[in-house]
Amino acid sequence: MNTDKRTLNIGLFGFGCVGYGLYSVIGKTPGLKVNIKRICIRDESKERPVKLPLFTADKYKILDDPDIQVVVELIDDADAAWEITQLALRKGKAVVTANKKMLAEHMEEILELQKIHGRPVLYEGAVCASIPIIRNLEEYYDNDLLQKIEGIVNGSTNYILSKINKDNTTYLNALQEAQELGYAESNPLLDTGGFDAKYKLLILLAHAFGTIVKPEEILNIGIQNLGDLEIQFAREKGYKIKLIAQAYRNEDETVTAFVAPQFVKPHQQLYAVDDVYNGVIAESAFSENQFFYGRGAGAFPTASAVLSDISALTYQYKYEYKKMKQIHYPISTDVTLTLFVRFSQEHEKSIAGYFEKIEETYSNRNSQFIIGKMQLGKLKQLKETYPELSVIVAN
Amino acid sequence: MNTDKRTLNIGLFGFGCVGYGLYSVIGKTPGLKVNIKRICIRDESKERPVKLPLFTADKYKILDDPDIQVVVELIDDADAAWEITQLALRKGKAVVTANKKMLAEHMEEILELQKIHGRPVLYEGAVCASIPIIRNLEEYYDNDLLQKIEGIVNGSTNYILSKINKDNTTYLNALQEAQELGYAESNPLLDTGGFDAKYKLLILLAHAFGTIVKPEEILNIGIQNLGDLEIQFAREKGYKIKLIAQAYRNEDETVTAFVAPQFVKPHQQLYAVDDVYNGVIAESAFSENQFFYGRGAGAFPTASAVLSDISALTYQYKYEYKKMKQIHYPISTDVTLTLFVRFSQEHEKSIAGYFEKIEETYSNRNSQFIIGKMQLGKLKQLKETYPELSVIVAN
Repeated sequence: MNTDKRTLNIGLFGFGCVGYGLYSVIGKTPGLKVNIKRICIRDESKERPVKLPLFTADKYKILDDPDIQVVVELIDDADAAWEITQLALRKGKAVVTANKKMLAEHMEEILELQKIHGRPVLYEGAVCASIPIIRNLEEYYDNDLLQKIEGIVNGSTNYILSKINKDNTTYLNALQEAQELGYAESNPLLDTGGFDAKYKLLILLAHAFGTIVKPEEILNIGIQNLGDLEIQFAREKGYKIKLIAQAYRNEDETVTAFVAPQFVKPHQQLYAVDDVYNGVIAESAFSENQFFYGRGAGAFPTASAVLSDISALTYQYKYEYKKMKQIHYPISTDVTLTLFVRFSQEHEKSIAGYFEKIEETYSNRNSQFIIGKMQLGKLKQLKETYPELSVIVAN
Repeated sequence: MNTDKRTLNIGLFGFGCVGYGLYSVIGKTPGLKVNIKRICIRDESKERPVKLPLFTADKYKILDDPDIQVVVELIDDADAAWEITQLALRKGKAVVTANKKMLAEHMEEILELQKIHGRPVLYEGAVCASIPIIRNLEEYYDNDLLQKIEGIVNGSTNYILSKINKDNTTYLNALQEAQELGYAESNPLLDTGGFDAKYKLLILLAHAFGTIVKPEEILNIGIQNLGDLEIQFAREKGYKIKLIAQAYRNEDETVTAFVAPQFVKPHQQLYAVDDVYNGVIAESAFSENQFFYGRGAGAFPTASAVLSDISALTYQYKYEYKKMKQIHYPISTDVTLTLFVRFSQEHEKSIAGYFEKIEETYSNRNSQFIIGKMQLGKLKQLKETYPELSVIVAN
């Protein structure tokens, strides 16, 4: 145990892949004065990759230890993570977390708790692992020139979509392979339904535009309904289908945000982002696009993002949420998108009615699609009524 | 004039493209409490895109004004820029500059002056304009996990090289077109000789590895000797020739840094960085590569980088140069590179002697090349003896 006063003592919650990754990475960065003082795990009897005297099942061994200045929370369960985050802040500890669901659901309260207790919460590891996107939005795009942020922020679905494209296979086959490789969960809907991407988008929204909304206010369309017709359609046109999270400012000083599959063309930067990689584009008024690319998930990329946050705490870094102190951009769904919608024959009439303007229709014996203009608010209603539809943005 | 106490008053030196760009951008960011109080120009009689009562030819109108907290220096002349930077710091003003030559030549003194006078110097606009690479090295890669940084950091040469590749044209034709379009200077050696790239590399070196060296200590090989043989060679192999600045840590805790043309293969990230765009790869021990891409030059991209620095001053941001407080990595040239070297027949014997190992030789009536292994220190000697050689890294 290192009791040097300049050393940051860490209490770690969770010792799964990322927790173990962090433990290993800290061991290899002697320049950083950081010491894992205790690790709280649920089950003390479970076999671990290392035998350490630091393990405990009692969270208060960390929370009540006055020598521990930082709680690093790397557990899966968003509710348990939220409880630990609150307790840690109340006990005057800084928190580093990678739990996007917790962050997305409790952003407003997390802001409030940071103010009340004067301790920071950092969470670069929660969005695109190795890409320092929050730090860039926070520090570099802190003026009102940022117009749009969009990206591929979920590795599992990008792996599945890349697989479909490369191997000319079906959605279900690609999903199964992703599951076998450990790139997708046995219950994959969090990823395939676009929920994980939406949680990340909500975090980006707070830092990009100062807009805080609840997950249920933002539409997420996943890839789980993807069928052979649209896969074939994309192939013939030379497009790739990508799951894209995006948020942009409108001229009336509102912000539009949603997650949906999109046809991406070869000249677009996100076209080349394949497999488990992530890519994010920041579009600002005067400097065109900046593109950030890196590994979006995995134990070590996430651990090294967590480590950068820990390192930032050694010099009293905290997010300033500067955008929130500037203009407040409310959310708007009053924008028109070009959409590809595949549906079954019996719904044709009712679905056609949601479009402002129909540009293409196609049908064969098995299925049919419409391409046309639709307002985002209408799309939300459409998906609520017909959740089984396959919808792809075709802007 | 805005005399609100929370407003940052700026004294601007230079009103060329970037200066005018900054003036325009500030006008469009009302969220930022920033006011250009005075603009110092060399020639008051010159025609300007705007008529402003703020112009002066007397630098002391800025330097002696106690209301001006920030000097933004956007003049071409590195010596004049250095004089202004020193004077401004001594007068207790923060400095924002985009002058890479000045920074590279005076990095050590700039560090010292920041310490003595307690005022920051920020210079994101000096390297890759719109790509926030210094901020990322400073804030995010501040631990000792960073292994390598490499990139295309000069827009002019990248434009010329892209042109050669796309139009199947010669170096001189491509250079001429770049000059006609304003992408290259009438005396282009600063760019084509790799000097501009080296200045940027030296700035990156300070922030990536805490290593400060003088420009003359680092080898820069430019593209000015590029001939048809190697252009043809690259084309046949499916490579692109790119001018790459790179710095990496060796196992013996030294750092190697140089600028040279390199054969880049299609699977490599820098392959897709064409025209005036820049791309930088940060390679760290546990998170694989991060790739940053954006417009590397131009009035507005540079102005918006300068603006981000100004904005950072509103919350007392300064570079911490953390790497310098950690391990010191000395420069080493004791590394072996694979090189393509084209030369004229009479030098064959003497040039062959510089290689550790020769892998390929080729000759025709007009020219010949060797591909082989050479130590970087030897390459430096070789280039000093035969500056006319065309050398391309072929790792």
